[in-house]
Amino acid sequence: MSATETLTLGEIETLAYDALVAAGTAPESARPLAVATAMTEADGVASHGLAYVPIYAGHVDCGKVDGKAVPVLSQPRPGVVAVDAATGFAHAAIDKGFETLIPMAREQGVAVLAVKNSYNCGVLGVHTQRLAQAGLLGFGFTNAPASIAPSGGAKPVLGTNPISIAAPGADGEALVLIDQSASTIAKSEVMKHSREGKAVPEGWVLDVDGNPTTDPDAGLKGSMVPSGGYKGVGIALMVEMMASAMTGASLGTEASPFSGPVGGPPKTGQFFIAIDPGATSAGSFAERISTLVASIRDQDGGRLPGDGRAKARARAATEGVAVNSATLEKVRALL
Amino acid sequence: MSATETLTLGEIETLAYDALVAAGTAPESARPLAVATAMTEADGVASHGLAYVPIYAGHVDCGKVDGKAVPVLSQPRPGVVAVDAATGFAHAAIDKGFETLIPMAREQGVAVLAVKNSYNCGVLGVHTQRLAQAGLLGFGFTNAPASIAPSGGAKPVLGTNPISIAAPGADGEALVLIDQSASTIAKSEVMKHSREGKAVPEGWVLDVDGNPTTDPDAGLKGSMVPSGGYKGVGIALMVEMMASAMTGASLGTEASPFSGPVGGPPKTGQFFIAIDPGATSAGSFAERISTLVASIRDQDGGRLPGDGRAKARARAATEGVAVNSATLEKVRALL
Repeated sequence: MSATETLTLGEIETLAYDALVAAGTAPESARPLAVATAMTEADGVASHGLAYVPIYAGHVDCGKVDGKAVPVLSQPRPGVVAVDAATGFAHAAIDKGFETLIPMAREQGVAVLAVKNSYNCGVLGVHTQRLAQAGLLGFGFTNAPASIAPSGGAKPVLGTNPISIAAPGADGEALVLIDQSASTIAKSEVMKHSREGKAVPEGWVLDVDGNPTTDPDAGLKGSMVPSGGYKGVGIALMVEMMASAMTGASLGTEASPFSGPVGGPPKTGQFFIAIDPGATSAGSFAERISTLVASIRDQDGGRLPGDGRAKARARAATEGVAVNSATLEKVRALL
Repeated sequence: MSATETLTLGEIETLAYDALVAAGTAPESARPLAVATAMTEADGVASHGLAYVPIYAGHVDCGKVDGKAVPVLSQPRPGVVAVDAATGFAHAAIDKGFETLIPMAREQGVAVLAVKNSYNCGVLGVHTQRLAQAGLLGFGFTNAPASIAPSGGAKPVLGTNPISIAAPGADGEALVLIDQSASTIAKSEVMKHSREGKAVPEGWVLDVDGNPTTDPDAGLKGSMVPSGGYKGVGIALMVEMMASAMTGASLGTEASPFSGPVGGPPKTGQFFIAIDPGATSAGSFAERISTLVASIRDQDGGRLPGDGRAKARARAATEGVAVNSATLEKVRALL
């Protein structure tokens, strides 16, 4: 067990905000990133919470992300919001977009947000969750540097490209929250095995020739195994089309790495679809989704995607979050 | 090799139309179903082409689908079309919905179509393909009777629920067409093995207790294996939320079987999202998606989802389609 220190969600947000501002991030960009950091810690996804703040700070420093960028919003059609993140943080661009997207979706019944020239948006479900909290069904798509090969090929062209969908509950929270990548396993797990000099299980990675391997380094030079074979490639491609082609952002083959200081801004993209369930279902959505959720919860052992995060979130709201002390030390060193 | 007879796409459409009308389907419902039948045969998906016409006719006869139903359209918001299929054919309801959806999506930048009280819509990609042919990026979702269990459970609550996305090319055709179910394999393959008394490979089905089995009948009583484990469940759940909760249609747990004469209308649903790529990408979509497609096609062996269907379609347009003679005999018997 590593040493931990328990912080409230407010303390996490304040610490993240102060550290990001101290590292040269404009307050307008630091705030949404700090809010998302607290939400991510609340959801129990420690790998993408405070642990990421020193990485963000380093990326501001080396110019992989512009901490002072001002996202530019346009509204090309009654149902479309587009935001050019101007190589700044994705969170600030998404936040600005949501301010217009949410009322637009309520009025039109559906609206979309296309974000380009942006950066790693952290946990995608944190963003779609906010749409559900606004009473909307939210889809999210974001792309990443290429690490999945197409069917029949061995050269990576698609990222591990997550897709997320969040559906609203009656209590102002997300009732269902799906957030999953297109690969069998997260790339960060392979990197962890590489750092620790451990073999990875078969079915995680392929070498440069597309053959199965248990060597994490051969896998990092090769490609990630898509979840469910060609169907995982299909999902990665769907997400790539949405996050890049539909926004004008970099493709996974063009994006610089999300990790490390080299290559300049990745200029990847995010795409969100927000739909008013009351409008499309003539008011029957709440009953229908409750029945669906009950059919899963009511059976022995049955669980929904997002159940683990929701449980962690409820606990964090009252008890705070136990944060790794070494992580806290690194974040506080930025102040 | 079974005996075949080569028909043009026009002949397939006419034959399907005449047979459906002779079986008691209203011309307004028979036409879109006949058009889709020809498109499905063109795409090389023979299992869902003319072979389905006698099943459709039988379902009109037993009341599983109302051949004379008139779909009712409403427009509850500027970006939302809703169609009550009134237990008639999905194709007629979707056709009616698309007439409004397509111009609406061009004007608003995005629009959605929610169809409820409908029936098996055949090959989902045939519908999204039409949105791509109209220059729009189209998403499609449709649900089916429950056959996939949730993570942690053994009782089916979700259908094999396909998702489809079609992206437009410069030539008025779909450049990318993804159309995939949430299960490892189609349920029809398991039924085929059952009819032929053959064991199925491991990884296709689970028995009623959720354990792996190679007995197709045990699998049909149990559940289908989700593609990629819990991620396949996530996709099935996403589709269920869209096709049922977002439309007001039956859940997979409530729907009557798509096969056989019992249980009355399944009352399942379909949901479509149509987006104008030019609006969201400030005109860069065509270049971005061409670069993406080239990155896949240009590598040895690399192929895109939908490539097989596109090749079949191109061949069918000039050479027609070789249809199984026994199938043709059954369809002609309806005239």
